[in-house]
Amino acid sequence: MCSVLVTGANRGIGLGLVKHLLSNQAFNVENVFATCRDMGKAKELMELKKNPQLHILEADLIDHGSFFNLASQVSNIVKDKGLNVLINNAGISSKFTRIGLVKSEDLLNHFKINTIGPIMLTQALLPLLQMASEKDKSATGVYKAVIVNMSSILGSITKNDQGGFYPYRTSKTAINVATKSLSVDLKNNGILAVSIHPGWVKTAMGGPSAPLEVEQSVTGICHFLKNINESHNGGFYDFEGKVLPW
Amino acid sequence: MCSVLVTGANRGIGLGLVKHLLSNQAFNVENVFATCRDMGKAKELMELKKNPQLHILEADLIDHGSFFNLASQVSNIVKDKGLNVLINNAGISSKFTRIGLVKSEDLLNHFKINTIGPIMLTQALLPLLQMASEKDKSATGVYKAVIVNMSSILGSITKNDQGGFYPYRTSKTAINVATKSLSVDLKNNGILAVSIHPGWVKTAMGGPSAPLEVEQSVTGICHFLKNINESHNGGFYDFEGKVLPW
Repeated sequence: MCSVLVTGANRGIGLGLVKHLLSNQAFNVENVFATCRDMGKAKELMELKKNPQLHILEADLIDHGSFFNLASQVSNIVKDKGLNVLINNAGISSKFTRIGLVKSEDLLNHFKINTIGPIMLTQALLPLLQMASEKDKSATGVYKAVIVNMSSILGSITKNDQGGFYPYRTSKTAINVATKSLSVDLKNNGILAVSIHPGWVKTAMGGPSAPLEVEQSVTGICHFLKNINESHNGGFYDFEGKVLPW
Repeated sequence: MCSVLVTGANRGIGLGLVKHLLSNQAFNVENVFATCRDMGKAKELMELKKNPQLHILEADLIDHGSFFNLASQVSNIVKDKGLNVLINNAGISSKFTRIGLVKSEDLLNHFKINTIGPIMLTQALLPLLQMASEKDKSATGVYKAVIVNMSSILGSITKNDQGGFYPYRTSKTAINVATKSLSVDLKNNGILAVSIHPGWVKTAMGGPSAPLEVEQSVTGICHFLKNINESHNGGFYDFEGKVLPW
């Protein structure tokens, strides 16, 4: 049994992940912590709250000062079992622009929410991830401790042949190098870190032309997580577990 | 004859580049624009100011609103010849830390100065780069138009086997994907964009243990720039022109 925290769980891939995790199709989940910025706007998530495994918590990724309070709420529930999986899913994306129309405020907001938020939340939850990792020395993967940074193929420098998209690309490429640093920094603590590209999914962010349904993406991600091991540490994968270039 | 702008020119690699460019050893330079945050603290740079090719301008990379004023000052000097080379050299680096001690303010400052600053300055100077690129259709490389983003091997995700260094690494990896986007966005405008790792150099940032002297690094960079062509567009190179992995 493991405990998982998913940020940005009010809609899209985050909500899909919460539903999939609650169904226990991929692996056995004791607690799912679903965070959203505003519970009042998280109607579909709130409808799931009768499920005793689910804990809905408010968290604004831009408010780094609140993360220790969030960690404390999680700690009160998981106690000495700790937190096994942190899925840094919450993120923003603005419209496509080429260099001429980029705004510094837009770059700054993407870094705050897509990069600094996940790094600082990981730091705040580190003692709980550490606890989970040490709990059962024979455990592996999601039953031990894993940090998942939701990245994007748009954060792959190698694959960037379309240009533009400065705020989104820079923030996602930046989280990729943070994933790599986490994988090195936490290796001896038995905590794995990976970046995942969820695919281009029909969500508010992905738009209606996206080829993938949320269910396909989250099923793939959870299946990949089920089998995750040390060989994946510090890598960049798509929702089917295929390695992506930096 | 070409005009070059170097940011962060008061010391270290920036100052070294200015001196090397003024010597015309690498290529023929008509104007060198050397920017620094505070002329009062740029003693060594100010000592060069009797050189008629040199124009010292104040620019704070965090003050994006001032970039159009900077562009206007450059424009008044280069007139319709435009600016051929922009070297986004200014940058900051804080001490090495692992995940436990990262501060959000530190991450934010690195993004502002090392990533957002260069992107917004490039945007502000784009009309001048465009002018230089169109001036002489038969020109190539630095006699046409080139954007150089000073990156670092620490921004290479592939080479990150030491971890830590979140503020510096994330900001440099982010500028690398911006370089790639610039190379795509501006390809049809005849403007090239590259990321360069200057090597580990004996400067205030690099420290006294660094293996390279400023002169070795800037000589290598200028030699590489002298020979730059379309085949280099959108790539990441060390100071000797060797390709680095993302």
